[in-house]
Amino acid sequence: MKTSKGVEQPRIYMDHAATSPIDREVASAMFPYLTERFGNASSVHSFGTQARAAMDEARAKIASLIGAASKEIVFTSGGTESDNLAIKGVAFKRKECLAKRGPHIITSAIEHAAVLETCRYLESMGYSVKYLPVDKHGLVNEAVLEDAISAGTVLITIMHANNEIGTIESMGEIGKIARAHDIVFHTDAVQSAALVPIDVEKMNVDMLSISAHKVYGPKGVGALYIRKHTAIEPITHGGGHEHGIRPGTENVAGIVGLGKAAELAMKRMKEDIRYVRKLRDKLIGSVLRLEESYLNGHPENRLLNNAHFRFSGIEGKLLVLLLDKKGIAASTGSACFSHKSGASHVLLATGLNEVDAHGSLRLTLGRGNTEAEVEYVAYAIEESVNQLRQLSPLWRKRRSRGNG
Amino acid sequence: MKTSKGVEQPRIYMDHAATSPIDREVASAMFPYLTERFGNASSVHSFGTQARAAMDEARAKIASLIGAASKEIVFTSGGTESDNLAIKGVAFKRKECLAKRGPHIITSAIEHAAVLETCRYLESMGYSVKYLPVDKHGLVNEAVLEDAISAGTVLITIMHANNEIGTIESMGEIGKIARAHDIVFHTDAVQSAALVPIDVEKMNVDMLSISAHKVYGPKGVGALYIRKHTAIEPITHGGGHEHGIRPGTENVAGIVGLGKAAELAMKRMKEDIRYVRKLRDKLIGSVLRLEESYLNGHPENRLLNNAHFRFSGIEGKLLVLLLDKKGIAASTGSACFSHKSGASHVLLATGLNEVDAHGSLRLTLGRGNTEAEVEYVAYAIEESVNQLRQLSPLWRKRRSRGNG
Repeated sequence: MKTSKGVEQPRIYMDHAATSPIDREVASAMFPYLTERFGNASSVHSFGTQARAAMDEARAKIASLIGAASKEIVFTSGGTESDNLAIKGVAFKRKECLAKRGPHIITSAIEHAAVLETCRYLESMGYSVKYLPVDKHGLVNEAVLEDAISAGTVLITIMHANNEIGTIESMGEIGKIARAHDIVFHTDAVQSAALVPIDVEKMNVDMLSISAHKVYGPKGVGALYIRKHTAIEPITHGGGHEHGIRPGTENVAGIVGLGKAAELAMKRMKEDIRYVRKLRDKLIGSVLRLEESYLNGHPENRLLNNAHFRFSGIEGKLLVLLLDKKGIAASTGSACFSHKSGASHVLLATGLNEVDAHGSLRLTLGRGNTEAEVEYVAYAIEESVNQLRQLSPLWRKRRSRGNG
Repeated sequence: MKTSKGVEQPRIYMDHAATSPIDREVASAMFPYLTERFGNASSVHSFGTQARAAMDEARAKIASLIGAASKEIVFTSGGTESDNLAIKGVAFKRKECLAKRGPHIITSAIEHAAVLETCRYLESMGYSVKYLPVDKHGLVNEAVLEDAISAGTVLITIMHANNEIGTIESMGEIGKIARAHDIVFHTDAVQSAALVPIDVEKMNVDMLSISAHKVYGPKGVGALYIRKHTAIEPITHGGGHEHGIRPGTENVAGIVGLGKAAELAMKRMKEDIRYVRKLRDKLIGSVLRLEESYLNGHPENRLLNNAHFRFSGIEGKLLVLLLDKKGIAASTGSACFSHKSGASHVLLATGLNEVDAHGSLRLTLGRGNTEAEVEYVAYAIEESVNQLRQLSPLWRKRRSRGNG
């Protein structure tokens, strides 16, 4: 990227939680299915069977990544559809209870919009939903969860790792509680799958949402793990694709890409975790030297690639724009809400006030980032925060009071 | 493709109604968005704005293809989702009428499963649905449609061109009736969009479903045209993407591919129609010389690329397998039902009995086919049909009776 003055500018991507670059090996695996191997996986001729075989292979890879069986994987158009399918799938299956008493769903206050808006929609249909509070680090409390369970509870849906602040919930414990009460447990693992180890058995999870584009795969494809014997209703209707759960001609190239991304994750996860975490920790260490800068989210139980800061006296959106001018891609929080005003529901749920919540910056790293980039980004943040604070009447007033 | 004897075998694709090859220009347009231009279209930084701009351009191209405005196009994961969104979107918007009287939907008996199964699902919820019969060519009768309309009718959904027999319905007339009664009119144009000219104004259509992979684009992406002021409810919930109608991170590469396919269609449609129809007519002429062979569907009002035959005394599925061995990709009908038993609901609706319906073969051509391929295919069909008839006790008995 060149600036208006023709100077070569860095183009540093630190917004992997919004979407990740596609790994070259993933793209290479997809290309044949976007060119000569174009068959419809439902066709009986050789073009079709070739596509079907590629899909089967991808399905086995996703299953293997999370310790599931191939038959338990259903391909979707992405994380949002996976979440909708899981939650409505269970709720609609229990629709007959609606007349008697609204079946009960438990979720958390910091879920992604795909979960929260689906729950709100179900509320409008007569289902009752409990939105569990979280502590200042974004953690759901297990005792509070246990208290929320009633005889009518049909589903617990709590995300694995938060998309904004990166906090990782105690899946194993939540899963145990769900299992003990014989309640279906779904988790949105869109941010975590293929970045950290996942084992659906250890987690006691019954359904798990995955998105390809968060893990070096393509956009427009995802998967939902559905544990054997977990009964759900489809949310779209048509041909009998995907075990009758998700109709529509399968996105073969996308599915192959998701499979390759899963394969690469299995191969590289250990090294990725070590490398990315080291970079991330270096970034956090540098940035927190800035005065009145804080880390949002859990100090330890957080995604290895997530650094979520807040800076007193600044507006996060302006900071993102300044960084963009310096060739750095970052965000204030969820990309899905980037064009909306209003403070992040996640930060408010952790107890921040509106003003502090607006002063946030999310940097999410990936395997393509370098130490030099981290140094440049830390420097650019410092420069930009100072610049914005200079312009902030509020900050200047506080400073002059403090110094006066 | 080589046979077991190492002989080079032709690989002829005549199943474009199941899915089409991806045009090289489409693939080339997509590749940058599967490599360096990987941004999330909702991100505010330069990676995001680059993706957003590409999507806007694609949206304008689709709109232009069908005579709509950009704002009236919503991207989906494909034709099945578009159909579900259109039909449920209208039905759910009128859910409040359900308590009083099930709102009424009119469709035809020969729709794609994405429409039929959606309607059946709505029936299970209390909506009432009228499945209009068709004549022997697969045409809906306008007087019958008019008769079916009642005060509670909220939606007419009738496909533009049938996916099995290729019959093109009288859109303009149906649209006029819908408009006169102030009823929302949706059409599944998955088989026709980008193959024949479409003008949503001339058709008086309010919603129109498009799929990329039927028109030389990628799988996993489609669009729904929604006329301005047509109120529908989303069927999935999440972030506010696609004017709040369809949440989920947009499949930028797929959308770019769909846009390019639309652009190419506009450029090449006239020539494609001339060329493909000529090939198709040659094929029909050759095949119908076979004894007891018939053309299903309308003799004139049919998709230019569709040839749908039936042959007495044979089983279509066996014919498809024999042709596959000769390097030819064909089908009996819808790929979405290829692994199900039972006769085609479309053929039964046109008045064929079970036995005749099972003796069918669909060949759907594309711009990549050649005259030499058509000659080879016609020859291979003749050879295969004769071979199968030799093996059919039913056919031999009829022959010996006929000759005796």
